[in-house]
Amino acid sequence: MEFYLGSSYYPEWWPEEEWEEDFAKMESLGLNVVRMGEFAWSWYEPREGEFNFEPMRRAIDLAAKHGIKTVLGTTTAVCPPWLYQKDRHVKGGNIHGDYSFGGRKGQCLSNETFLKYARRITLEQAKALGDNPNIIGWQLDNEPGFPFNDFDGCCNEGFRDWLREKYGNIDALNKAWFSMMWSNYYNDFDQIEIPVNAAEGGWSPQVQIDYRRYFSFTFNSLLSMEAEIIRKYSPDRFIYTNWPGANWSVDCFEGAEYLDYAGWDNYVGQPAGDAYRVQLRASMEHSFDRRLSSGKERFLVAEQLAFADANNVPEVVAAQTWLNISHGAFATIFFEWRSPTGGAEEAYPSLLMRDKSIGEAGPVIKKMTDALKKHYSKIDGASTPSKVAAVYSHENSWAHAGWVVDGFYDEEFFNAYGGFKNALACNVDVASMRDDLSKYKLVIAPNLRMMTREDAKAYTDYVKNGGILVMNTECATRDFNNQIYELLEPGLLSELFGAEVISKIGASKLNAETGAKASVRYADGTERQVRSTINKLRLKGADVVAEYTTGRLAGTPAITVRKYGEGYAVLYSTDGNDVYFYEALAGYIKNTFGIESLLEAGDGVIVSSRVKEGKEYIFAVNAKDSPVEINIPYTVEDVINGGEISGRYTVEGYGVLFALKNNR
Amino acid sequence: MEFYLGSSYYPEWWPEEEWEEDFAKMESLGLNVVRMGEFAWSWYEPREGEFNFEPMRRAIDLAAKHGIKTVLGTTTAVCPPWLYQKDRHVKGGNIHGDYSFGGRKGQCLSNETFLKYARRITLEQAKALGDNPNIIGWQLDNEPGFPFNDFDGCCNEGFRDWLREKYGNIDALNKAWFSMMWSNYYNDFDQIEIPVNAAEGGWSPQVQIDYRRYFSFTFNSLLSMEAEIIRKYSPDRFIYTNWPGANWSVDCFEGAEYLDYAGWDNYVGQPAGDAYRVQLRASMEHSFDRRLSSGKERFLVAEQLAFADANNVPEVVAAQTWLNISHGAFATIFFEWRSPTGGAEEAYPSLLMRDKSIGEAGPVIKKMTDALKKHYSKIDGASTPSKVAAVYSHENSWAHAGWVVDGFYDEEFFNAYGGFKNALACNVDVASMRDDLSKYKLVIAPNLRMMTREDAKAYTDYVKNGGILVMNTECATRDFNNQIYELLEPGLLSELFGAEVISKIGASKLNAETGAKASVRYADGTERQVRSTINKLRLKGADVVAEYTTGRLAGTPAITVRKYGEGYAVLYSTDGNDVYFYEALAGYIKNTFGIESLLEAGDGVIVSSRVKEGKEYIFAVNAKDSPVEINIPYTVEDVINGGEISGRYTVEGYGVLFALKNNR
Amino acid sequence: MEFYLGSSYYPEWWPEEEWEEDFAKMESLGLNVVRMGEFAWSWYEPREGEFNFEPMRRAIDLAAKHGIKTVLGTTTAVCPPWLYQKDRHVKGGNIHGDYSFGGRKGQCLSNETFLKYARRITLEQAKALGDNPNIIGWQLDNEPGFPFNDFDGCCNEGFRDWLREKYGNIDALNKAWFSMMWSNYYNDFDQIEIPVNAAEGGWSPQVQIDYRRYFSFTFNSLLSMEAEIIRKYSPDRFIYTNWPGANWSVDCFEGAEYLDYAGWDNYVGQPAGDAYRVQLRASMEHSFDRRLSSGKERFLVAEQLAFADANNVPEVVAAQTWLNISHGAFATIFFEWRSPTGGAEEAYPSLLMRDKSIGEAGPVIKKMTDALKKHYSKIDGASTPSKVAAVYSHENSWAHAGWVVDGFYDEEFFNAYGGFKNALACNVDVASMRDDLSKYKLVIAPNLRMMTREDAKAYTDYVKNGGILVMNTECATRDFNNQIYELLEPGLLSELFGAEVISKIGASKLNAETGAKASVRYADGTERQVRSTINKLRLKGADVVAEYTTGRLAGTPAITVRKYGEGYAVLYSTDGNDVYFYEALAGYIKNTFGIESLLEAGDGVIVSSRVKEGKEYIFAVNAKDSPVEINIPYTVEDVINGGEISGRYTVEGYGVLFALKNNR
Repeated sequence: MEFYLGSSYYPEWWPEEEWEEDFAKMESLGLNVVRMGEFAWSWYEPREGEFNFEPMRRAIDLAAKHGIKTVLGTTTAVCPPWLYQKDRHVKGGNIHGDYSFGGRKGQCLSNETFLKYARRITLEQAKALGDNPNIIGWQLDNEPGFPFNDFDGCCNEGFRDWLREKYGNIDALNKAWFSMMWSNYYNDFDQIEIPVNAAEGGWSPQVQIDYRRYFSFTFNSLLSMEAEIIRKYSPDRFIYTNWPGANWSVDCFEGAEYLDYAGWDNYVGQPAGDAYRVQLRASMEHSFDRRLSSGKERFLVAEQLAFADANNVPEVVAAQTWLNISHGAFATIFFEWRSPTGGAEEAYPSLLMRDKSIGEAGPVIKKMTDALKKHYSKIDGASTPSKVAAVYSHENSWAHAGWVVDGFYDEEFFNAYGGFKNALACNVDVASMRDDLSKYKLVIAPNLRMMTREDAKAYTDYVKNGGILVMNTECATRDFNNQIYELLEPGLLSELFGAEVISKIGASKLNAETGAKASVRYADGTERQVRSTINKLRLKGADVVAEYTTGRLAGTPAITVRKYGEGYAVLYSTDGNDVYFYEALAGYIKNTFGIESLLEAGDGVIVSSRVKEGKEYIFAVNAKDSPVEINIPYTVEDVINGGEISGRYTVEGYGVLFALKNNR
Repeated sequence: MEFYLGSSYYPEWWPEEEWEEDFAKMESLGLNVVRMGEFAWSWYEPREGEFNFEPMRRAIDLAAKHGIKTVLGTTTAVCPPWLYQKDRHVKGGNIHGDYSFGGRKGQCLSNETFLKYARRITLEQAKALGDNPNIIGWQLDNEPGFPFNDFDGCCNEGFRDWLREKYGNIDALNKAWFSMMWSNYYNDFDQIEIPVNAAEGGWSPQVQIDYRRYFSFTFNSLLSMEAEIIRKYSPDRFIYTNWPGANWSVDCFEGAEYLDYAGWDNYVGQPAGDAYRVQLRASMEHSFDRRLSSGKERFLVAEQLAFADANNVPEVVAAQTWLNISHGAFATIFFEWRSPTGGAEEAYPSLLMRDKSIGEAGPVIKKMTDALKKHYSKIDGASTPSKVAAVYSHENSWAHAGWVVDGFYDEEFFNAYGGFKNALACNVDVASMRDDLSKYKLVIAPNLRMMTREDAKAYTDYVKNGGILVMNTECATRDFNNQIYELLEPGLLSELFGAEVISKIGASKLNAETGAKASVRYADGTERQVRSTINKLRLKGADVVAEYTTGRLAGTPAITVRKYGEGYAVLYSTDGNDVYFYEALAGYIKNTFGIESLLEAGDGVIVSSRVKEGKEYIFAVNAKDSPVEINIPYTVEDVINGGEISGRYTVEGYGVLFALKNNR
Repeated sequence: MEFYLGSSYYPEWWPEEEWEEDFAKMESLGLNVVRMGEFAWSWYEPREGEFNFEPMRRAIDLAAKHGIKTVLGTTTAVCPPWLYQKDRHVKGGNIHGDYSFGGRKGQCLSNETFLKYARRITLEQAKALGDNPNIIGWQLDNEPGFPFNDFDGCCNEGFRDWLREKYGNIDALNKAWFSMMWSNYYNDFDQIEIPVNAAEGGWSPQVQIDYRRYFSFTFNSLLSMEAEIIRKYSPDRFIYTNWPGANWSVDCFEGAEYLDYAGWDNYVGQPAGDAYRVQLRASMEHSFDRRLSSGKERFLVAEQLAFADANNVPEVVAAQTWLNISHGAFATIFFEWRSPTGGAEEAYPSLLMRDKSIGEAGPVIKKMTDALKKHYSKIDGASTPSKVAAVYSHENSWAHAGWVVDGFYDEEFFNAYGGFKNALACNVDVASMRDDLSKYKLVIAPNLRMMTREDAKAYTDYVKNGGILVMNTECATRDFNNQIYELLEPGLLSELFGAEVISKIGASKLNAETGAKASVRYADGTERQVRSTINKLRLKGADVVAEYTTGRLAGTPAITVRKYGEGYAVLYSTDGNDVYFYEALAGYIKNTFGIESLLEAGDGVIVSSRVKEGKEYIFAVNAKDSPVEINIPYTVEDVINGGEISGRYTVEGYGVLFALKNNR
């Protein structure tokens, strides 16, 4: 299959006579895919029951005339005014009350009216357009999962039903929720309310995690219903949705069960100067989405900025796209082709400049589509072999910081992934917490607080059998009701790590007292700051890797290692603060345990590899705007420009090396 | 007509036997006007239909006995408890829900009950008191326009009616609102809701601007109704309202159609040290209100602090009043005479000290009233000839930052006015965007984003015919639905300015990357920081005036000039950041195009002129607390102190020179 | 009576078979009291009318078997789900709307359903358990007074009834509320609403203070009802409640009328480094609670952290407890024994570590219980003679900052108490504003803005008769409706202090203008920064103690003193900024008027004394983690360790000296 490079496009915004000019310009850049229709419900059904899919069919066919295939969206991320007028509760509410009509999303997925009409429009759309040969794939909904919570009466009912199903009887719930505290002991599921506007003390972590699960459940239910319809009426097309990222209100691993691929919306900012590390975030999301394809090792970037800002050269757009490809993307869809003249997203940049001319990124994209047409088939369907994995868990994310995007859990997870990716310069997988990890040499798994005894045994076995496991003291301290084990941290894994926490202190308090930033120091003198909580460790078999430097904890263990069976268990007893903390930790592990890099790369270059039919392709994408030197300890063939390379090599600013490793 | 200097006074707060002492003390200071009654609805009508205007009549007549005329207020800024009890919806609501009774304002101007009773109390008041000869003028309402928005069911209905009237059919609205985005396509006006609590994505700029217009419309409707009643029952009195300032939720230019004058409430802080520039803000508001008198070149300062704080000398109170006069004020009403002992505004300073003695400002005010009695007639009705104008647009203010007072548009506008006023040392008018600008040599018009093709032609003609026009790249980029033209910035005026924007970057991003503050540099080395957005320009006929200094844009054009017809079009491609940015820009224009100052003044002195019967009076008000030297390149006669002055002259701290230009 | 040292414990959380292990461990530490049951409503009455107090009886008796007495709580700080299901309005609401069920508190104390069932559960509990001989005392509710305000319909009704009762007729209310301002003039009590969500201008201070009083009244009504029931069915036990601190929404002085003792929840942070001054806050709360025992000079610390964080040595737990004792505590109850595994307070530290082992504080506590068993009887019931008092007033607290915990009034009050306590090194009482002050040599009474003429006379007489009174210029400026007297500050007391305020300025404005921090300077050069408002004084008989240093006020009086009758009146005309300001002021007073310290103590040591049967015991608690030298100008006997001490002596970090003054 060819690489799909294209853009979003909204035919419903523009006079039909202008469509062809747009598609022709896309064609001129070599684009071969367009994403359409994900907000078009009102266009299809302007009044209840009056369906008209002809205009969209014409748009699809016109695109095809210019060599452009269509990815079509289902429309349930929006809701037409007439439906809201029919039943106001098709939208939910927030702490301020019910949502008014306007904007988008906020539909209440517990509302029967909404579900009925959402099903009907999806069915009608699939029937009307599903057999169009120019449709290659479907996007379900759009960034499903907003608004992270929904507070209305329908949700109350839905939540209670879900709890009835989950717990069977109210006493099981009471036990799971520790509801005897504060007399919150329920007699009946009908007494339960969605967690909004508590008087004092807030909601228990147990209620919150269940509400998050219910919220996720409603979205996965809607989407799997849509997937079923699409599979029936539009077979042989791929189905995905565009997650905004791993840190989300819907469990994307569950989504993998009814979707073919995951897409994600890459709004990671354009790098510049030393801020290239933001692209490590993109790397993490790529690896996460690659995991969601259930072994197919592919994913889409469903939205990506198509525009270099005034302080960037346009090549940055290509660099970001090559980074996608180096991690397994089979498509990149820019957002967007042509900016709207009205609406809340007026200011989004687009491939077309505001005067409909093609912007500075045009030639860069053309160059890229030419290269892809020539070379992409070499790696289409390639695998991305990884010896290292970072473990992500939605439920543990939700169990942490509550309902904040980029909350504590996810920031730490990104820092951990990013730090290891950068320091190790090799492929890093993202795994779910119950994936088979035995194929990895090294696993980093921060903040897996909720863990069953079975989980703990699996991680212990992983180390026993030779794995290197890196965790922090928060891990394994709670069951899956988010209740705390009556054990010292790291809870179920104290024996594995050979250390336990006997006291805690907030780093900010320590900093205030000592006037110094709390930090850890390795034997070689490397020192890194820590952030929020510092734990005092009692060693029970572990060796010290790094020590604290400040306050009464100066000189006490901060990071430890224990040989356990054939492997090693590395424990850090603080928060990582930032990506630099994890780079230092990864550096220690690399030096101590000999994790192999794909090549030596200076800061700025992100290195990956793909393997197909026994050939290994190396990608080195420079996310900096200045040249960076790398060192290739073998010989490669430059796929795009031809020629052999070995040893020291300079990757230009925002440049990419796509090379075949010489097997000689 | 004499100059009216006086104070607010609330007879309803005090025992009637204490009134005379208050009026006598006012008289002793030479005050000749009192503003009363703008919150007195409950005093007039303590219970529904029980009217009693006798106490106010007695207060008016008692004041007159002491030589004090009355400006009387209509009372619709408040609402009596009994009316709220009758219909809770006489008050509106905010995002938290309906307003409770308490405080003031918040009346729903879409509520029929409120409108009916508001009309009745105004009518009864006008009938009862309108023919009192001691009333010289009427203030309608009080700072009409709070709370900037109003969210309740009555507003929903009113908004829909207004939209029906404006658009005629729903498809016109759909087009204007670009509602096909996100399926917000309406079938019926009844589906529309006031823009509060959207789910995700927020409200489109198109809905928002129309809601702002509707909100403004309701206030102008109420006030014009009141004006009509007052004109009928109290003819030959001037009518005004007290706007809080140009940046407001009601279109004051429309208010000019039913009002005689504009007043404003001058709560600009007392200057001290180098903070004298706050008085440039007062200068701007003065010029704005002068414009609103529709050619009469007069305005009121309807509220002004009457009190020098502990770090100021009392002369500052006089300096502020002379500044009013120098811009065209015919009255200044202090707020307030005597502080209340209770209520939410307990802490407001007053002319009377808390123990009813006259404070330190007393002798200063007496000196001023003496001077005014002697000399004001010389300039009463004088014109304020200006060669420079700054263009203000309520709709463009609303189209920018949403509903924030002192938001981006207005801060920029003030900085532009203030910078030009300070650097040019001459009169600067404030004009509406469709005023005839042909009489001005120089026009500065920042952020006129919404502009019709007719507007663009008018500005182009202005330059063609010899004017100097200063705009930024945001100008002329949107139509009056707040939809964006499919053109590069500066949209309709690219041809005029001979430059267009090809890319943008946030200054904060640039600063973060480069570690340097983004700034522009003129040919003479003058450098000024910029704030939020930096635009990369492509020149198409313009010459460079100043360049950027940082990042990839270093050395590229930041400010340009193009000779066009007989005039010059100056374009700046960034935000002005602060008043200093505009002072530099004005300095360049002054030097290049020869704009003439009234005199040379050091920082701190604000210079204006008034012309009457062929005589030109010069005002130089020192807003600093230390002496400032000015240079008068001609001979003037000191009006207050007598004697001739020429050349170097020192204006004392908070001092004023009021001088007649010698015509020899 | 023995000293009670123990912990909270929640038998309802744990399997009954685990209780005995817990009680046995308590016994092993020498603990002799347990607090139970304050949130157990649902345990007692899981379904309406189904009462079961047997499990709690068994828990009480099991504790007793291990030598542990019980303090039992009434349960009205929580509400069972079935009651909320019966009538949603048993919970109130906030600005977001009605509370959902979850968390704790938020009960509407104006709701008849709640009051009926709250009375019934208390009655049933008292009947069932009241005669248990192992119960030594009762805690009513838990931290009664949250949520500071309550906004719902029941409250509206209750508030109106309370106002009817207070004012008799609506005109009295109108006068008290100054309601003629802004037409808020009421015809009928039914027009009044609880102060939430005002449109503009906010609520008048008069409405606010009455609402605060009503809110306090509802809590005192509930608690006095509970006290009456307990006294009847469980006589001869002490009754208290656990206030969170002096700064609270309920008038604790009124609570003293139906309670035996006051308890407070000491969550003052553990001191470390130079932050030992936080313990002065605990000292203040101790003295406040000692006052609330109505002459019995005892109080409880009802909750106290039982845990030394990782940067502290465990001795800090003992130091805090000794500090309690040195001020008159007869009990300290740690919070808590064993952390819950679920619920909103999962993360609270406890005496048991998470693995149920006893933590590092165990041996420290054991050592303390041993010492207390041996020596506490010497001081049980001792008095705490004070020559110095700091005056606290709930109504003045409420009249200041509104509804913010640790608002301006209370921060100032703490700074004043703390500064005087630290500088004077002697006992300092907290008094209510109408206590008999004649026994004190020195009284500090900041921000008593509301003061009647009778109050003013009493303070004047206090000075006349030889007292030293320290107040600021805000004092005596308002009546008890919170209306301002028409007098210059310090209002009713200008004559006493011989100075008055003629102008004000915000310190931040001054700082901005002068670039210097506003401060005051004493004759000896001591200089201290001031915070918010600076007042310009006119002297009328007073002498200057300290002057301002900045702006136009440099060199003008900031602090003054006047000899008046036999005493001295010290006035400061600014805010104290911090505890250092008051330490300097206390230092001036100590040096000038000869206030005697108990001993000389370096920073860190908090000194108190207790007297019993003619013997004076000195306590010197070191709140620092490093040794501090003190100087004892007499001979003492070390009670705990034996031996005589005199002159220079070093108190170890977190150490305590408990010594009997030698009377020779």
